[in-house]
Amino acid sequence: MWAELACIGRDSESGGYRRFAWTSVDSELREWFVAAADQRGMAVTVDRCGNQWAWWGDPDLAPGVVTGSHLDSVPAGGAFDGPLGVVSAFAAVDALRAEGVVPSRPLGVVNFCDEEGARFGVACAGSRMLTGALAPERALALRDAGGVTMAEALRTAGRPTDVGRDHQTLRRVAAFVELHVEQGRSLAYLDSPLAVASAVWPHGRFRAELPGEANHAGTTRLDDRRDPTLGYARLILAAREAAELHGAVATCGKVRIEPNGVNAIPSHVTAWVDARAPHESAVRAVVGELAVVARDAGGGLVEESWTDETPFDAELRAQLMRVLPGVPVLATGAGHDAGILAAEGIPTGMIFVRNPTGVSHSPAEFAERDDCLAGVTALAGVLGELLAGAR
Amino acid sequence: MWAELACIGRDSESGGYRRFAWTSVDSELREWFVAAADQRGMAVTVDRCGNQWAWWGDPDLAPGVVTGSHLDSVPAGGAFDGPLGVVSAFAAVDALRAEGVVPSRPLGVVNFCDEEGARFGVACAGSRMLTGALAPERALALRDAGGVTMAEALRTAGRPTDVGRDHQTLRRVAAFVELHVEQGRSLAYLDSPLAVASAVWPHGRFRAELPGEANHAGTTRLDDRRDPTLGYARLILAAREAAELHGAVATCGKVRIEPNGVNAIPSHVTAWVDARAPHESAVRAVVGELAVVARDAGGGLVEESWTDETPFDAELRAQLMRVLPGVPVLATGAGHDAGILAAEGIPTGMIFVRNPTGVSHSPAEFAERDDCLAGVTALAGVLGELLAGAR
Repeated sequence: MWAELACIGRDSESGGYRRFAWTSVDSELREWFVAAADQRGMAVTVDRCGNQWAWWGDPDLAPGVVTGSHLDSVPAGGAFDGPLGVVSAFAAVDALRAEGVVPSRPLGVVNFCDEEGARFGVACAGSRMLTGALAPERALALRDAGGVTMAEALRTAGRPTDVGRDHQTLRRVAAFVELHVEQGRSLAYLDSPLAVASAVWPHGRFRAELPGEANHAGTTRLDDRRDPTLGYARLILAAREAAELHGAVATCGKVRIEPNGVNAIPSHVTAWVDARAPHESAVRAVVGELAVVARDAGGGLVEESWTDETPFDAELRAQLMRVLPGVPVLATGAGHDAGILAAEGIPTGMIFVRNPTGVSHSPAEFAERDDCLAGVTALAGVLGELLAGAR
Repeated sequence: MWAELACIGRDSESGGYRRFAWTSVDSELREWFVAAADQRGMAVTVDRCGNQWAWWGDPDLAPGVVTGSHLDSVPAGGAFDGPLGVVSAFAAVDALRAEGVVPSRPLGVVNFCDEEGARFGVACAGSRMLTGALAPERALALRDAGGVTMAEALRTAGRPTDVGRDHQTLRRVAAFVELHVEQGRSLAYLDSPLAVASAVWPHGRFRAELPGEANHAGTTRLDDRRDPTLGYARLILAAREAAELHGAVATCGKVRIEPNGVNAIPSHVTAWVDARAPHESAVRAVVGELAVVARDAGGGLVEESWTDETPFDAELRAQLMRVLPGVPVLATGAGHDAGILAAEGIPTGMIFVRNPTGVSHSPAEFAERDDCLAGVTALAGVLGELLAGAR
């Protein structure tokens, strides 16, 4: 399974993956998913929002236990973030069947679409549309870097644009467990191959609009300039400083400079800030300071998306810890589809697999084979308990 | 003439022009040039490097007097930078003919290609290739933002790739006068519609390579980060500070951030610096300080292009001042094809037309109609003298 996936959407220049939602690469990934389900005799359904579900058993007879993750990536992303959870889900199905498990209720494997938000700017777009957390009209109007709306992208991919909350699909999910590569170095420090998640940190994306005045770089006196890169530079440094002060993380990873010419003073800078912390008050403190910097530069800071702290289901977490005695429990700074389903009230849990370097969203992202196999075993164990149990 | 040009390459979003070398827009501009020459019975020749020359008289019988400029633009550029000099050149031909002038030697109008360097990063590429200041192998290997080389772009445009120093064409140019919109506010301050150029400031383009490590913006502790945007921010602020200190101008107008995703710590930042000053020592002082900032950020600063101070021909300048008594004489921070020809030893001069706001490289670039007409009259006067005189 892993070998077939490894070739799809690989970018020869960076050595990483570029798997954006509703592209031809994404179609190949979706075909891979259907083939993996077919090989296991699992029926594939696609919900209103394009998320793919492979079922062992009929999900309309009784609510099922679901596992899975996503197959899309950030630009120049790694091989593990997302795909490890989907591949491990199918591998766990194989393990359960090898053990002769006969599930008392359906088991589902899901591929959530557009989790990274790399194309349209909203993370977990597939699961957010599914629960209604992302309104259909807003989703369809989102534009990619080339100006293509999500509605147009869906049509190009041959998908209906009737997206929105899908009650029927949500009713099928009695519990959800997502396995994911860790995106920090905590497990490397703690010397443990696996962890159980406690909560997703509150986090948000903010956009700074910094206006300037386009002009010639050689002939415009310094005093006559309105150069928006100066405010942008102050924003970058202030983000780091405020994050340190408030125990948060803040990142200015994306920018659009207009016109982005060597000999032109820019007319406008649009800069994005990603801010997260264990507590909302810390994120708000960071963002408050950055809003002042943006205002001082003659611009402003707009909230593009916000996600409250999302604790995972306590009972399911206890169950995970019974299967994985002694593993650490971690809160995570990364958003996940599991967090979106947890916010919807579905009992949800997560298993993290050790990442020796902590590097993620990069071609250097990695997990040892033994740790991945330990993850599959743990996932199969939890799913087996859930399939046997009452919830 | 002006009205026909006004529609070509207009970008509906910015209201400015996007006229990059060897694009379909550029082809339209070149067709416009041929049509303008045809209407005047002027024969068009194209040199090895793709620059277009329209001739009144046979340039191989005697070296000619040449005027003109360029038709390409920066992204979201203005209507005047370049085209004003080409349109004024044809208008000056009309004026001379209306006066009944019978030239004793040829008069040429030139459209230099790729003056702004907006596509391939090297300014005055057409004139630099013509004189050999830009080596053919280096020129052909330059890449645009989409990875297309200049060689590929030339082929796509149906042009031969046999670029390089063109002796035959250079022999045809006994003197060159370029009319150009001013790109600062000096003439507005001095309350004069026109100026004569004394020299082009020494100037250079430098590229900072700032390495980082791609990682997840939510899960990577601040201490574990190698975030190249921090060094980039310091570079921007240091450029401004050093420019103020040394009486120079310095601009960080262009950047490439990889992968440029909201939730990814960038793996690499490439930032360009444009630096100019009345004296080379000031530019070198600024660049020296920025090299330290780039080194402290674990990277380095590379010189992409350099142009020495270029004084214009003293005799031709005296001639220009006889035709335009009392007009101010200005050095300019902007590079021009005239500077490239002057460095080649061709007697060269420039006329600047007042820009009331000083804004250039922007849709807001402007010159009053009366000032433009004064420019045409002045240009026709100078050309008339040169056509009658010995040089």
